[in-house]
Amino acid sequence: MEPLPTIALTLGDPAGVGPELCLRAAADSRVLEACRPVIIGDRAILERVGERLSLALPVTVVESPDQLDRVDAGGAMLWHQPAPAGAIEPGVASAAGGRASYDCLLLAIEQTLAGRFAAITTAPLTKRALHLAGIDEPGHTEILARRTGAPRAAMMLYSERIAVGLVTIHQELASVPGSLSIEAIFDTIELTGATLRRIRGHHPRLGVLGLNPHAGEGGLFGDEEGRIIAPAIERARAAGWQVEGPLVPDAAFTQAALGRFDAHVVMYHDQGLIPFKMLSFHDGVNVTMGLPIVRTSPDHGTAYDIAWSGRADAGSMVAAVRLAARLGQGASSD
Amino acid sequence: MEPLPTIALTLGDPAGVGPELCLRAAADSRVLEACRPVIIGDRAILERVGERLSLALPVTVVESPDQLDRVDAGGAMLWHQPAPAGAIEPGVASAAGGRASYDCLLLAIEQTLAGRFAAITTAPLTKRALHLAGIDEPGHTEILARRTGAPRAAMMLYSERIAVGLVTIHQELASVPGSLSIEAIFDTIELTGATLRRIRGHHPRLGVLGLNPHAGEGGLFGDEEGRIIAPAIERARAAGWQVEGPLVPDAAFTQAALGRFDAHVVMYHDQGLIPFKMLSFHDGVNVTMGLPIVRTSPDHGTAYDIAWSGRADAGSMVAAVRLAARLGQGASSD
Repeated sequence: MEPLPTIALTLGDPAGVGPELCLRAAADSRVLEACRPVIIGDRAILERVGERLSLALPVTVVESPDQLDRVDAGGAMLWHQPAPAGAIEPGVASAAGGRASYDCLLLAIEQTLAGRFAAITTAPLTKRALHLAGIDEPGHTEILARRTGAPRAAMMLYSERIAVGLVTIHQELASVPGSLSIEAIFDTIELTGATLRRIRGHHPRLGVLGLNPHAGEGGLFGDEEGRIIAPAIERARAAGWQVEGPLVPDAAFTQAALGRFDAHVVMYHDQGLIPFKMLSFHDGVNVTMGLPIVRTSPDHGTAYDIAWSGRADAGSMVAAVRLAARLGQGASSD
Repeated sequence: MEPLPTIALTLGDPAGVGPELCLRAAADSRVLEACRPVIIGDRAILERVGERLSLALPVTVVESPDQLDRVDAGGAMLWHQPAPAGAIEPGVASAAGGRASYDCLLLAIEQTLAGRFAAITTAPLTKRALHLAGIDEPGHTEILARRTGAPRAAMMLYSERIAVGLVTIHQELASVPGSLSIEAIFDTIELTGATLRRIRGHHPRLGVLGLNPHAGEGGLFGDEEGRIIAPAIERARAAGWQVEGPLVPDAAFTQAALGRFDAHVVMYHDQGLIPFKMLSFHDGVNVTMGLPIVRTSPDHGTAYDIAWSGRADAGSMVAAVRLAARLGQGASSD
């Protein structure tokens, strides 16, 4: 039997739900049957949260690559990455918290590129805490893309019921039409197709949405379908992908349509996230596509309001770690 | 007991699914327990479709207001409105079909304004057939607004599970941000609120969506939430409406959110229609709000491809007639 893949779980912002999510996920039987989870974070912070919520820490603790290489027992581990000095309190964004979340992420990227982890699952961090720590990055995806030198990256939301690849993400709606290009749509189709093929183990059927009501109704309400989206679909077909579209957006996520596609490629954030969150509110996984390494995360934020309270739902984090394990295995056997 | 309201069912484009929908709806027990349906259309066309599909025509036939006034039996009726000369074949847009659909609609509007009908439910027509007949109108809503002199009209999609009022409708996505105004959003909130109050019989709880991802995340991705949507919500609250928002769009239609609101006000077509069609694909009703008369319709088109075939699903038409009856009754007792 092949050994289980080793997956890095980064703590994210220690003042958010990250510590609770990591402890719960690393002890979850669904995670342990899929991988060997290694929490990367500050031991003292995890002990504080663990005591408060009666959650056990992993027994095996390492502090260096050498130590990790020498461990041969199974089960969860903790890679102690000391947080910088500074008070960290639940629900409060701080420079120390921002720096800690950044350090854990950089360590995970470095050690994954070095082959020690098959994939990374990141607990949430905040732009605000990063900023307080003097780190001028909007979030995980951008840090990952830059640090791994990825030429193109895109975001997918995945669950068993629905999967959406996003052509544009966090930008105002007014700027979406101007951001679309044949290139960007083609890239997202290809990245979504490759990710789904790895997850499903077969050539995926992809649906690409139009931008406008009724997919433009033959040019009556907008011309992006004919000018940009259809040519991108043609190019994807020529490259061997099984693609339908431009789909009429309001008919693309009905029961019948969901059964016809393994994934949808959407033009903007809410076109994909409204249907996604209706169908998968508690177990959605965010996958960063296009990186040389596998990275997943839960599809929610730091939830400062319930940090360290024991009320965090780890469903999405557990699903994220399991998907990371699946994609990480696929990656190494490709 | 109050007599059942009399509802006009206009045939729409006779070459589409309209004749089948009208015949099925007028014979449906759920319709007959809610109202007295009067199909307005050409008798010969209805006979052709009825024979082909083994559907009975209403026994009572009238051809003028006087005749209608003298009928005192209950049950469905047919108001024979002769179609102009010209071949009408299933699935083929024609001048004769466009003219017929227009004539039936004008008669229904005129007789509803005159008090003979409590409401109108319109079977679908096409812009193309209208155009062939030399009638330069984009569709039902515009004809109704113009003919009744309505200063502001808006569209709502309604079912038992979800209701959405639309601030903008059939226009390209790129033009949506520039079309939003405090006035337009306030009007849609008020029209949606008034319609829901009539349907539900209580003061409705309304949710108003943001335009941008995460409702702009405090101005990071767009400023329409703070500049236009929030002021419209404030104005609606000051006018006594119970309104929440701007809601984060991707969290606005989860199970929990649907339970919190009687209706949602959305900024653009697909923001409302994607979730609506996911939840109510077969029984959605289109309500034109802001007219001096009540008008509903099924939320689908002429479906030329299955015209006169017996395969039309009358679920949405039946729901539309029932809602027209409810709103029409409410209107007369207001």
